Amino acid sequence: MVRESKREEIVAAALDRFHADGYNATGVKDITDAAGVPKGSFYNHFESKESLATLVLERYGETRRLDELADTSVDPLDRLRNHFTFARRENESRDFTRGCMFGNFGAEIVDHSDEIRESVRQSFDAWAQALASTIAEARDAGTVRADIDPDKTARFLLSAWEGTLITARVYRSTDAFDTFFDIALGSLLKP
Amino acid sequence: MVRESKREEIVAAALDRFHADGYNATGVKDITDAAGVPKGSFYNHFESKESLATLVLERYGETRRLDELADTSVDPLDRLRNHFTFARRENESRDFTRGCMFGNFGAEIVDHSDEIRESVRQSFDAWAQALASTIAEARDAGTVRADIDPDKTARFLLSAWEGTLITARVYRSTDAFDTFFDIALGSLLKP
Repeated sequence: MVRESKREEIVAAALDRFHADGYNATGVKDITDAAGVPKGSFYNHFESKESLATLVLERYGETRRLDELADTSVDPLDRLRNHFTFARRENESRDFTRGCMFGNFGAEIVDHSDEIRESVRQSFDAWAQALASTIAEARDAGTVRADIDPDKTARFLLSAWEGTLITARVYRSTDAFDTFFDIALGSLLKP
Repeated sequence: MVRESKREEIVAAALDRFHADGYNATGVKDITDAAGVPKGSFYNHFESKESLATLVLERYGETRRLDELADTSVDPLDRLRNHFTFARRENESRDFTRGCMFGNFGAEIVDHSDEIRESVRQSFDAWAQALASTIAEARDAGTVRADIDPDKTARFLLSAWEGTLITARVYRSTDAFDTFFDIALGSLLKP
């Protein structure tokens, strides 16, 4: 149990450090220091920093509120808006820093690690599927355009969101979020 | 002259290394090794890795073909399509690796360096202005929707493109590019 709790402390510390500083700027010692465990204990729990990163991506995915996208008690178009409003507020509350762990790893490390690339791919798949289901519900409810392709539109929103976060970080401004809501989400609406 | 040429060799080597491996994974010694100069000579030419990075962003910006966006001998909507086709082909020819240096630095390093953040901001501004002028011309030519806001639309395309590159890298697939052309560029067209 002690062993298990140390492992979780390392995962939580790694999530925080990777998110704040990036994958390459975060060494194993930075992680074990942040977790308050000896550096030597790291390899009792994890094969490598790389395999820890895939676990961190899973944990990060659990914070993305995909369950709220599936909550049929709420109007599906409202769920889409609420989803990106949550992500927007989260970033604003961090003074526009940190961005999305999936996108950060996508920009920084996927060229160099097939293990991490596969993990980001699975994260994007899960997210796109949750978005696509909600978009299909909104289409069937008649609140978005009838000719919309839910899968393609979900992929489009996901990519547009990742780029929006980069722009918001670069300008430290809400403008990119406003543009995403106006144009990207706006493109789903009936003319 | 020799001194000047060494400086340019370091900039070119840094552009290649930063693009391939990222900012934090590239040390000063990696850059001087790639340039074939002694590590000690680095600080004769540059104050810091950070200030070199701002110069690298300028050089990278010169490769973005913004001049072609301003070429009034070509139909403005064709220019927009050609611009993103160029960027798409470039990424495809690299087997979906490397992405865009602006977006990479935006995801990896702008939270930690105001100097680099300001440089990425200027790069995005120049790019968005070139896109906005072309979009305004297309609107005036009647080939895109009359109600379009050129500045906002330029910012939207820029963000959507940066996210599209991340998705293309994660999946090593052209799907994200197809979706960008269909939905993001498609949203400019008349219904």
